[in-house]
Amino acid sequence: MPELRKDPITGRWVIIATDRAKRPSDFIRQSVAPPAATICPFDYGNEHKTPPEVLAYRNSGGRDQAGWRVRVVPNKFPVLGIEGDLNKQGDLMYDKMNGIGAHEVIVETPEHAADLTSLTEKQVEEVLWAFKDRVNDLKKDRRFRYIILFKNHGEAAGASLEHSHSQLIALPVVPKRAKEEVDGSLLYYNLKDRCIYCDIIRQEITAGVRMVNDTDRFAVLAPYAPRFPFETWILPKRHESHFEEADGGTLQNLAWVLRSTLRRINKVLERPAYNFIFHSSPVQEAPLPHYHWHIEIIPKLTKVAGFEWGTGFYINPTPPEESARFLREAGLD
Amino acid sequence: MPELRKDPITGRWVIIATDRAKRPSDFIRQSVAPPAATICPFDYGNEHKTPPEVLAYRNSGGRDQAGWRVRVVPNKFPVLGIEGDLNKQGDLMYDKMNGIGAHEVIVETPEHAADLTSLTEKQVEEVLWAFKDRVNDLKKDRRFRYIILFKNHGEAAGASLEHSHSQLIALPVVPKRAKEEVDGSLLYYNLKDRCIYCDIIRQEITAGVRMVNDTDRFAVLAPYAPRFPFETWILPKRHESHFEEADGGTLQNLAWVLRSTLRRINKVLERPAYNFIFHSSPVQEAPLPHYHWHIEIIPKLTKVAGFEWGTGFYINPTPPEESARFLREAGLD
Repeated sequence: MPELRKDPITGRWVIIATDRAKRPSDFIRQSVAPPAATICPFDYGNEHKTPPEVLAYRNSGGRDQAGWRVRVVPNKFPVLGIEGDLNKQGDLMYDKMNGIGAHEVIVETPEHAADLTSLTEKQVEEVLWAFKDRVNDLKKDRRFRYIILFKNHGEAAGASLEHSHSQLIALPVVPKRAKEEVDGSLLYYNLKDRCIYCDIIRQEITAGVRMVNDTDRFAVLAPYAPRFPFETWILPKRHESHFEEADGGTLQNLAWVLRSTLRRINKVLERPAYNFIFHSSPVQEAPLPHYHWHIEIIPKLTKVAGFEWGTGFYINPTPPEESARFLREAGLD
Repeated sequence: MPELRKDPITGRWVIIATDRAKRPSDFIRQSVAPPAATICPFDYGNEHKTPPEVLAYRNSGGRDQAGWRVRVVPNKFPVLGIEGDLNKQGDLMYDKMNGIGAHEVIVETPEHAADLTSLTEKQVEEVLWAFKDRVNDLKKDRRFRYIILFKNHGEAAGASLEHSHSQLIALPVVPKRAKEEVDGSLLYYNLKDRCIYCDIIRQEITAGVRMVNDTDRFAVLAPYAPRFPFETWILPKRHESHFEEADGGTLQNLAWVLRSTLRRINKVLERPAYNFIFHSSPVQEAPLPHYHWHIEIIPKLTKVAGFEWGTGFYINPTPPEESARFLREAGLD
């Protein structure tokens, strides 16, 4: 008998189709191929092919020259523009504003063929520092209310360049999903005087069945009501509402945790395309006792989309207890 | 300069990327091929390959025999089961219930190679009658709170059988998107004492720029803040909260409107895969003055998904004024 489960944060019901539970090998998918040699704007020597850098950690070289380890540049085709005042206006019965924002690319390594799973721990840690530094710089701009950090890995997940990179979008509004999470966790906080994510972490560590990994500072788990097969969350164990407040020790541990989790996913699902998204608090908010930043990783395994988009109703063929077990037992060679 | 637009019903902000506006020919896509001859459980003579029918309109033959014009059968691999009592329970801090529901397939024609755009108007009208009849039958079962009618057309949109069919899922819960629409339209109603959809229809018919078609009983339009390129809505002009209350004249006009809209989409986008979803009120509710049933059609044109799923934030490369103009000017040959 399939089960309907409710996501405790957003209140969304999903069907967990336990009867036709899918194993990793049941998903039709294409592995993401290692990047091939090609002319790439993110390689050393091609720094002039991108807009001027906004941040770089370097061994040598000057601005927009080779020698960097991590480099952040504005997206060449930004979805939002950085210039101008925010102009909110009505449009008959509707509401709009001009598309003020920032859209940046974090180039994670100069090595064309590397990715987050093959980089050193130290290198991944620097990528996380670049995320943190860029958010802290951009949030000084009071026009920006939310900053999304995310990665599209593989063409099927929306990546248009294969050289390992992440993206950042700073927005003058809080996107709907973020608002739902912040509002949903506040409801729980008002009821219980506790953070719902903290409660989930405690309970999941005790139960164990949905745990993938449990480190010093992080819990890696499959959520109770995942929308997608092998959806995996990484949560800091200590309550913190804003990712950009994470300290050095936390980023160091996260580098290991993120890399090892992606390695587990690569091993079990044969290098799938995936997205990861940092879920954090609206940047202009003071620390929130009810919201808890985390990372959601979604391997791109299934094709159906329009139905889910249209209804907000999700059918997940893999119970999270199954996906967590596969990832937990994958080990780390 | 791109524009941020707010969906007036759900409050979702989307980016309309006017700078890099995409024309129909810019979308990488594969046309849906006409169905090939194959052994198909939905063809005449194969009625025994499906579960026993729950409804059929017939010219001849008995139950589960050839001679039908439209036939409805339970899905052979249902995502929910029809048997048993609804058993809501806690699971430590979480909530779940057993997967009670109905999952049916509406076979729209016995002709293997036909689809909604090639059927006669009369035949499409009978498909709509089958939708209505099944909802009215299933809503007698008080366990069901919401019934979704939808179509996946083409493999890229999630169809697993090519023979023209739609699906119905009856649920013991109201899916999130439906709840958001009903709640959002109630906020507006409380403020204005008017249905927001009725206001949108009036305003759009006057403005004209997002209109695709305007008939006796229906308005076909691109919404102000669409999440997807060429997203198209069909709304009855007379206020009605529940699709299953539509009268014969309305279904007759809708048959023409739905077929002609799909023909326009086929012409402009070269037979894309698409989904359509009927958005209607929770079935156990009395008529609602604030909610207005309608159909949303989403051609499957873009690949990126995980980012949108993860954030609830949508970037649409085609302004609705453009998509409406293409569809409006497509004509109907």
